Amino acid sequence: MGVKKNEKSGERCALQEILGIIGGKWSMSIIYALFSGKKRFSELERMVPNINTRMLVKELKNMEANGIVKREVFATVPPTVEYTLTTKGEKLEPIINELYKWGLEYVN
Amino acid sequence: MGVKKNEKSGERCALQEILGIIGGKWSMSIIYALFSGKKRFSELERMVPNINTRMLVKELKNMEANGIVKREVFATVPPTVEYTLTTKGEKLEPIINELYKWGLEYVN
Repeated sequence: MGVKKNEKSGERCALQEILGIIGGKWSMSIIYALFSGKKRFSELERMVPNINTRMLVKELKNMEANGIVKREVFATVPPTVEYTLTTKGEKLEPIINELYKWGLEYVN
Repeated sequence: MGVKKNEKSGERCALQEILGIIGGKWSMSIIYALFSGKKRFSELERMVPNINTRMLVKELKNMEANGIVKREVFATVPPTVEYTLTTKGEKLEPIINELYKWGLEYVN
């Protein structure tokens, strides 16, 4: 599918790098929650199942460092913090939807 | 994309289940190696980067238990063991290729 078949080893290394970015236990769930638009921390905490505050902070920091998520602080009182997907993160939407459909058909 | 938006929480749980199946450090690399057809254990060991024998045994057992990979033993001397993707595993090909293309465009 447009992937050069003569660079197999490099491709598999790349897949490991990609998993390092989106393969965390909650990463895809957080990305999924952000498909419907910007969210505050507390909204994400409610939307992502089985995550605690400490882990959500950690995952969001990783995702920000990896350029998947953008964090914006607004100078309200108290300050408002909002998370949105970057373009890089948004481009995962069709892929994650396809994965989800695969899961619906084949998992359980 | 055909995904019902009113089942958000269930969807995200499903994504975590899916990651449990294909989110292991080497799972996608092994699946990728099998896209080009059946492989012996020793071939997979060569094709999957940075994996050791013990981990490859473990990953393949998991993938067999999850119905991604089929293991066939042939009564040669010595016995030949071959691994192939099941239909469920083959259906991941376009998704993994799209992930790889996403990585090419956005990672590094």
